[in-house]
This record gives sequence, C-alpha cells and structure tokens, in this order.
Amino acid sequence: MLKPNQKYANALHELLEPGPVVLLSTFFKGRANLMTLTCTMMLEQNSPFRILIGLGPWDCSYNALLKTKQCVIAIPALDLIKETVKIGNCSGDEVDKFKEFGLTPAPAHFVAAPLVKECLANIECKVIDTSLVDKYGLVVLKPCEVWYDSAKKERRTFHHNGDGTFTVDGKKVNLKKLMTRWTEYL
Amino acid sequence: MLKPNQKYANALHELLEPGPVVLLSTFFKGRANLMTLTCTMMLEQNSPFRILIGLGPWDCSYNALLKTKQCVIAIPALDLIKETVKIGNCSGDEVDKFKEFGLTPAPAHFVAAPLVKECLANIECKVIDTSLVDKYGLVVLKPCEVWYDSAKKERRTFHHNGDGTFTVDGKKVNLKKLMTRWTEYL
Repeated sequence: MLKPNQKYANALHELLEPGPVVLLSTFFKGRANLMTLTCTMMLEQNSPFRILIGLGPWDCSYNALLKTKQCVIAIPALDLIKETVKIGNCSGDEVDKFKEFGLTPAPAHFVAAPLVKECLANIECKVIDTSLVDKYGLVVLKPCEVWYDSAKKERRTFHHNGDGTFTVDGKKVNLKKLMTRWTEYL
Repeated sequence: MLKPNQKYANALHELLEPGPVVLLSTFFKGRANLMTLTCTMMLEQNSPFRILIGLGPWDCSYNALLKTKQCVIAIPALDLIKETVKIGNCSGDEVDKFKEFGLTPAPAHFVAAPLVKECLANIECKVIDTSLVDKYGLVVLKPCEVWYDSAKKERRTFHHNGDGTFTVDGKKVNLKKLMTRWTEYL
C-alpha cells in the first residue's frame, strides 16, 4: 500500500537520480491525465532539492501542468513497463489513461493531481519556475510530499535507451565507503 | 579501441537518456581534469539534441568548463565503477586524476579536453549556454562528436542511487512495437 514516507522524502535522490522512466500525473478541468517522461533531473544546487522535467506543447499534459502548476511524478516498477510505454504512445485528448490501462487514481495531500496507486513511489510536486519552458521545454518542480509502497515486491525500475528498448535495474553495488568527500555534505 | 562513430552520433539518447553516471573531462591551463557527474539530462525540444549537466562553483572543473567552453562527457562501464566514485571524491586541485586512477587521455577532434580511452563512449561537447549557471548550476552543451568503443566487452553502465549505492544495468526489454506514436518523430 502506498504511504507517505518521510524517509523517502529525505531521499528523493534515491528515487530519481538513477534516471528511471516516470509517469506525470495531472488534473485539469475535471480530468486526470498521465504522460510518460524519460528525461528528468535532480537540481543539486538547491536545498531542498528541485526536480527538472522536460516536456513540450505537443504534450497534452503540458497545458494542464502550466495552468494548474501542480503534478505528481509517479515511478513505475517493472510490472508496469508495458502500460508505461502505452501511456507514452497515446494522447489524453483521446483516452482516459487511468481507465484504459487499469490504473487507480488515489488522492494526494497537497495537489489535485492523483497518485498512481500501482506505482512504487509518487512524488507530489508544485511548479515553481516556468521561465525555461519556451527555450528548453523545462519546468522546475518543488517536491512537497513523497509516497512509497514499501510492501511492493517488484522494485526494479527501468530506463529508456532512447530507441524503444529499455534497461531494467540489475544488481546493486554499495560503495559508500568510497564516498569520503560526499559525506561532508550530509 | 575508441572510434568516432556516426551511428552513435545519431543515437546520443541511447547513451545518456538511461541516466548513467558519467565523467566530465576538461583541459585548462595545461592540465586535464576529471569529475564525476550523476545528473545529466537530454533536452528534447532541440534538434540536434542538447545536453544539460549540473555542477557548481565548488567543483574544480566548473571554472575550467566555463573558461574554456569545452568538455568531454565520458561514459564509464562497470569495470570503472570504483575509479569513477574515487574521481568524484577527490579534487583536481590536489590530484592528477588521469594518472592517479590509471586512465589514458586521448586526443579529441574538436575540443582540447581529452577523451578517456578506457570508457565505453566519449562525447565531445561545447558549452552553448551558461545563463542557467547562477540560478540552477546548469550548463547547456552541444555535442559535436561521439566516440564509441564497440569492441569493449563490459557494456553495462551504472546509476547512482543518491546514497553511495549504485544500480548496474540489468536485462534489456525491447518494446519498439509499442512505440507507435514515437516513430512519427523519427
């Protein structure tokens, strides 16, 4: 079950820094919508952290995001890989994506956009800077709540290789003992 | 052996979109230097593609990058994971990182920064926009040559989980047949 999780709120990097494919959930004019995002980035220079996402006016969610200034970034695990790709290949203008792909919208705390119940994690976000939209299609988000399904068995995320193939998370390597400089900043 | 590869120049997304940890190579005042970057992003809205990287004035490479407006993004495979972490945990002010970590600088075509011969791929880049540096620590790069070592056996890259642990590339999943909308843009 999805629960807000302070531990994960402090570890947004753990969720997004590896670069998984994510879903963007919005709610506008009484309709929830989803899109697939393969390019996100954590902004290091700000604390608390900010999230950068890239999208454009050709995306149905673009208008909803810019008008409502709210969204949820949902992180699917491997069990949703086909749904995630299909979501990225149809338009919210034509399809109710939650219904079409059997996903459950769940109420968020701080934004009208719904969480995606079947996802591994959900990050509620508010848009805080749209000045990079016209030039680079970049929107800056401030995360305001993180939900994590710690009981979910499938925890492998997946990464888009840019060509319709995806790389699934493999083994973990723990090199914390080599992070001597990094720990100064904790 | 590392070779410039037009096929990979057309498939920069294949290299960077999955979100691997990368090395940033610079050359300034007669010295080559390396830093480790865990946050990069492809900019979708531009064609040819642009690359966004995040770094800050606390990084020794920051000054070199902004002064020379040139760099190489080198993508290490799993065989270099320890070197990559160590490179990120010492300063170029104190250490000759190529020498210290047994890496071989090789001449690039369009930039003074050296390629890293042991890496899977190297992307020569020029800095084209520094207007986001002060606010977000973001630098926009234009790739101008891509080198790929197609004979290298270890091809798995690795992703930082934000906490000193890393996720190594696992299995590939081919879902090209579901990318119906995406192919319109090819």
